[in-house]
Amino acid sequence: MKYYLGIDLGGTNIAVGVVDEQYRLLQKRSAPTPTGEDYNIIADAIKEVSLALLSEMNISTADVECAGIGTPGQVNPETGYVVFACNLHMRNAPLGIVVSEKLGIKTFLCNDADAAAFGEAEAGVAKGTRSSVTITLGTGVGCGVVLGTTIIPGEGGHMIIRYGGEPCNCGRVGCFESYASASALIRQTKAAMEQDKNSLMWKVAEASGKVNGRTVFDAMRQGDSTAKAVVEQYVDYVACGIINICNLFQPEMVCIGGGISGEGESLISLIRERVQKEQYPLPDGSASKVEVCRLGNDAGIIGAALFGKYM
Amino acid sequence: MKYYLGIDLGGTNIAVGVVDEQYRLLQKRSAPTPTGEDYNIIADAIKEVSLALLSEMNISTADVECAGIGTPGQVNPETGYVVFACNLHMRNAPLGIVVSEKLGIKTFLCNDADAAAFGEAEAGVAKGTRSSVTITLGTGVGCGVVLGTTIIPGEGGHMIIRYGGEPCNCGRVGCFESYASASALIRQTKAAMEQDKNSLMWKVAEASGKVNGRTVFDAMRQGDSTAKAVVEQYVDYVACGIINICNLFQPEMVCIGGGISGEGESLISLIRERVQKEQYPLPDGSASKVEVCRLGNDAGIIGAALFGKYM
Repeated sequence: MKYYLGIDLGGTNIAVGVVDEQYRLLQKRSAPTPTGEDYNIIADAIKEVSLALLSEMNISTADVECAGIGTPGQVNPETGYVVFACNLHMRNAPLGIVVSEKLGIKTFLCNDADAAAFGEAEAGVAKGTRSSVTITLGTGVGCGVVLGTTIIPGEGGHMIIRYGGEPCNCGRVGCFESYASASALIRQTKAAMEQDKNSLMWKVAEASGKVNGRTVFDAMRQGDSTAKAVVEQYVDYVACGIINICNLFQPEMVCIGGGISGEGESLISLIRERVQKEQYPLPDGSASKVEVCRLGNDAGIIGAALFGKYM
Repeated sequence: MKYYLGIDLGGTNIAVGVVDEQYRLLQKRSAPTPTGEDYNIIADAIKEVSLALLSEMNISTADVECAGIGTPGQVNPETGYVVFACNLHMRNAPLGIVVSEKLGIKTFLCNDADAAAFGEAEAGVAKGTRSSVTITLGTGVGCGVVLGTTIIPGEGGHMIIRYGGEPCNCGRVGCFESYASASALIRQTKAAMEQDKNSLMWKVAEASGKVNGRTVFDAMRQGDSTAKAVVEQYVDYVACGIINICNLFQPEMVCIGGGISGEGESLISLIRERVQKEQYPLPDGSASKVEVCRLGNDAGIIGAALFGKYM
C-alpha cells in the first residue's frame, strides 16, 4: 500500500492529509500556522502535524511515497523554493527542501490554487475531463488550470477586466480579483448599504454581527431589491472573468470553489447561462461546462498529495 | 529528404511554402483566396497553388511528409473541420479532409495565430524557449500560446480588458482586440484627429491617401503632441492585455507580430518596460522577455507545415 501526504498551507491553518493511490483522503489533521518571518518555524509546524497524523494512522514515513505542499503565492516547483508569498512573509524561501529534510520524505511544492485544481481534476467534479479550470472565489480569486495531467502555472486572478478600475493588492488596477473575490463582494455590499439605509441587508448584517460574503445573498432571498441588484452586478463581473478564462484556455469544464461557491446552484446557474451565451465556441461547437467544486477544502490536500506523482 | 507543406489561408491570399526538416522555408507561392460560400472552391485553389509550387520545385507529392493549413477562426485539429471562420464564410466545413483528399497528402488543420506562434517557437525569435506567446496586432488581435511543443488553443484577443467598453465583433464588449488591433488604433487615431484639426496627423494621412496604422506613429515622430498622446494610450491598452496574458501563462517570451509590430523597437521597448514593471514575477523571479517576431508573414507557413509533425 502506497501513501501520499498532502499539505495545504494556509495563512491561518496547516491542514495535512494522507491520500491513497485511488486518490481517497483517508484521514486529516490540522494545526494553526505559526506567525513570524522564518520559514523554518513553518517547516517545523508542518513536520509536527504530519508526523502526528502518520503516527495516529500507524504509518511510517518509509511507507509514504512523497509529500506535496500547496502554498499561496508564487512557487518554483522545480527548485522547491517559495518565490514570493506575502501572506506568509516568505520570499525566496527553500520551504520544499527544508520540509523534505525534516520529514525524511521527498516533498514537492506547488501553488495552492493549482493544487485545488489538480485535486478536482483527478478526484473531484472534473474527474474524467480532458481539461478544466478551477476558480476559487474567496478572500482572493484563485485560478488553477489543468490540461491533461499538466498544470499550467499562472495568476488568473490578476487579469485586468476593467481598465482603470479598482486598485488590486498586486499593484495593478481593475484585476478580476478586485471585482470577484469575497472581499470585493463585501465592499460592493457595504457601498450599496450606504446608498440604501432601508435595505434588508442592514438587518441581515446585524443578525450575523457583520457584513460578510453571504449578507447580500441572504437579503436577496428575503426579497430585497437593492441586494438583488448587487448580486446581479457581482455575477456580471464574475462571468466576465470566467468567460475570459474560457476563451483563453477552452476548458471542457470550469469548477467554481471558494467560500462564495457555497451559494450553490442558484449562483452557478446564473454564471452557466452567461458562459453558454457569450463564450467563443469550443472546437466541437459547445460551451465549457460550469460546476461547483466537489472536494471543498480537501481539494488542496488531495491535489498537493498527488502533485509529486506527475512532476 | 523530407518536405513539409505549409498553407497560410487568409481572407485575401493563400500563401503556400515548402519547409524542410530544419524548419527552413525553401520556396513559396501565393494566389488570391477565392470569394464565395463554398469551401470546395477554396480547397481547389489550395490544391492548385500547392501543386504548382511542388512542380516548380520538382518535388512529387509522395516526397511530402504532410501538409498543414493555418486558417483564421475556430478549428478542430482532430477532425479536420473548420468550426467557424466568419471571414471565410465557413461553418462546420471539412476543409482539412477535403484538401487531404484533393492533394493526396495527409493534411492537418490549425488556427492561423497558433500556426504563427508555433513557427516563431520552433524556427523564429522564440526558438529555444520553453514557453512563448505570440501576439499579432493586425486587423484583429491573434494570440497563440506554445508550452513546450504543445499549442494551447484559445482566443486571447477576446479577453475583456475594459468591462463595459467598446463593442467587439465577437459580440462582447471591451475585448483586448477592440483596443489593441490595427483597426482599433485607426479608430483611436480618427477620433483624436476630429478633436484636433491642427494635428499633423491630417497632413500625414493626406500624404498616404488615408488614415492607417502608421499615421499616428509617423505624426508622433514629426513632433505632434496629439499623436503622441494617442500612441501612449494605445501602448497602455496593448500592455494591459499583454500583461494579463503574461500573468495567465507565465511565458518565457512574448513575441509581438502583425502589421503594428513594424514600428519595431521604439514600440516594443515601451511595452517591455511596462511588462517588467507590472507582471507578476515568473517562478525564477524574472519577467517575460518581449521581442518582435522574426519570421514575419512566413511564420504562419512554417508553423502550419510543422503542425502535423507534433499532432
